[in-house]
Amino acid sequence: MSVTLEDARRVIAAAEKRADEIGQPMNIAVVDSGGNLVAHVRQDGAWIGSVNISINKAWTSKAFDIQTKDLGDNAQPNQQFYGIHATNGGKVAIFAGGVPLSRDGVVVGAVGVSGGSGEQDQTVAEAGADAF
Amino acid sequence: MSVTLEDARRVIAAAEKRADEIGQPMNIAVVDSGGNLVAHVRQDGAWIGSVNISINKAWTSKAFDIQTKDLGDNAQPNQQFYGIHATNGGKVAIFAGGVPLSRDGVVVGAVGVSGGSGEQDQTVAEAGADAF
Amino acid sequence: MSVTLEDARRVIAAAEKRADEIGQPMNIAVVDSGGNLVAHVRQDGAWIGSVNISINKAWTSKAFDIQTKDLGDNAQPNQQFYGIHATNGGKVAIFAGGVPLSRDGVVVGAVGVSGGSGEQDQTVAEAGADAF
Amino acid sequence: MSVTLEDARRVIAAAEKRADEIGQPMNIAVVDSGGNLVAHVRQDGAWIGSVNISINKAWTSKAFDIQTKDLGDNAQPNQQFYGIHATNGGKVAIFAGGVPLSRDGVVVGAVGVSGGSGEQDQTVAEAGADAF
Repeated sequence: MSVTLEDARRVIAAAEKRADEIGQPMNIAVVDSGGNLVAHVRQDGAWIGSVNISINKAWTSKAFDIQTKDLGDNAQPNQQFYGIHATNGGKVAIFAGGVPLSRDGVVVGAVGVSGGSGEQDQTVAEAGADAF
Repeated sequence: MSVTLEDARRVIAAAEKRADEIGQPMNIAVVDSGGNLVAHVRQDGAWIGSVNISINKAWTSKAFDIQTKDLGDNAQPNQQFYGIHATNGGKVAIFAGGVPLSRDGVVVGAVGVSGGSGEQDQTVAEAGADAF
Repeated sequence: MSVTLEDARRVIAAAEKRADEIGQPMNIAVVDSGGNLVAHVRQDGAWIGSVNISINKAWTSKAFDIQTKDLGDNAQPNQQFYGIHATNGGKVAIFAGGVPLSRDGVVVGAVGVSGGSGEQDQTVAEAGADAF
Repeated sequence: MSVTLEDARRVIAAAEKRADEIGQPMNIAVVDSGGNLVAHVRQDGAWIGSVNISINKAWTSKAFDIQTKDLGDNAQPNQQFYGIHATNGGKVAIFAGGVPLSRDGVVVGAVGVSGGSGEQDQTVAEAGADAF
């Protein structure tokens, strides 16, 4: 009930396909049920600052069983989780691009994408998650 | 004048009971007068990202002898403690769920809860503190 | 195939019993298959510096599916893993007291103990693991 | 003059093939000329504590244009680089498994492998580098 390397590669392939379609090179990361990295790729030309962010988005999405964009809505000033981005050693990403991977209704991993706008990161992550 | 392991277990048991009542699995942590961890439990199914947050809420609550939700009110942008969440190596939690444990009017420890909404974390932490 | 809170409490109870027998208060931590903390206790009078060490011993033991004392043998100067204690953000403990928890031959978690001599930590951790 | 994602995949495929031959699941990471991660895979069953180490071995190998095992020889107590493992935020790996990737005599990236003995990590990393 977790994510195999084969699963991760299928998710990444679908995400890469979507990134190519929108013409924005991306970092794509997949974690398992424990939040541990299974696989990561940085497409040629993608931002080096997004290596860490893609991995952290995937971690965050599994760590709280939530899309990072939804966590972000609750993490703005004056919202209930404001300040959460500073917890867990700075690993909590609170902007779009992290999407849970579920099996039989249980979150067993997550995919994190970083390299474009929030909207671009989100659509690429969703394409990845759809392939799980 | 601190918190024994027996105290911590009584606090955690009461908090777990409340978490079960509201149907939300939680991370619950108790620290002593030095802010050091006495005990922690993660209920089955509770978020792994909340391990750190529950411990940090307890630490924060003792470190400033305050409920974390009250600290949070003062830690929003343009308020007097804005930025405090980035101090102390990121250990300062500024959202609901950390409640002091007092004896004879003196704060001698704290309980921290994370795993649900701010309201849920708070009610579980209060149930724990009431049992101290 | 991981470690429940009930499992962790059984392991901790057995470890505490052994710590009481040898008269040395201990920190005892249990992690699940992802290396994430399930439960921790610090017995009254146990070292506060051992909170972190007990958790890290448990993490290390699961992270490498090995007893920390055996990893330690390989992590001495001029041995094959010398320097490993500085990896993973300093979470790798290379002295006795971390023991894997296995089910059907698979490591699904670990217990970490810190608070006494290496020999004392080890016997307490083994007592915990035996109860799994 | 760096490492493309296609290059990294070819290196990783060759390393995986060697890991399969010796029957030891591995973490394999490839970095580019800037030391930044291009791709990482964790084979099913490989140690979660080796995610970080594989990436750090690759980083170290490029950062000093050297095999990590050779750096390790110089990083033992009383040797010229003793203590280097504590620099760079703990990213310097000083044991076998990190091998430079060169083109026309220039180091343009590196591969890092972790998951077995030092000898196993080294042979898998060399198989990866040979495919560059």
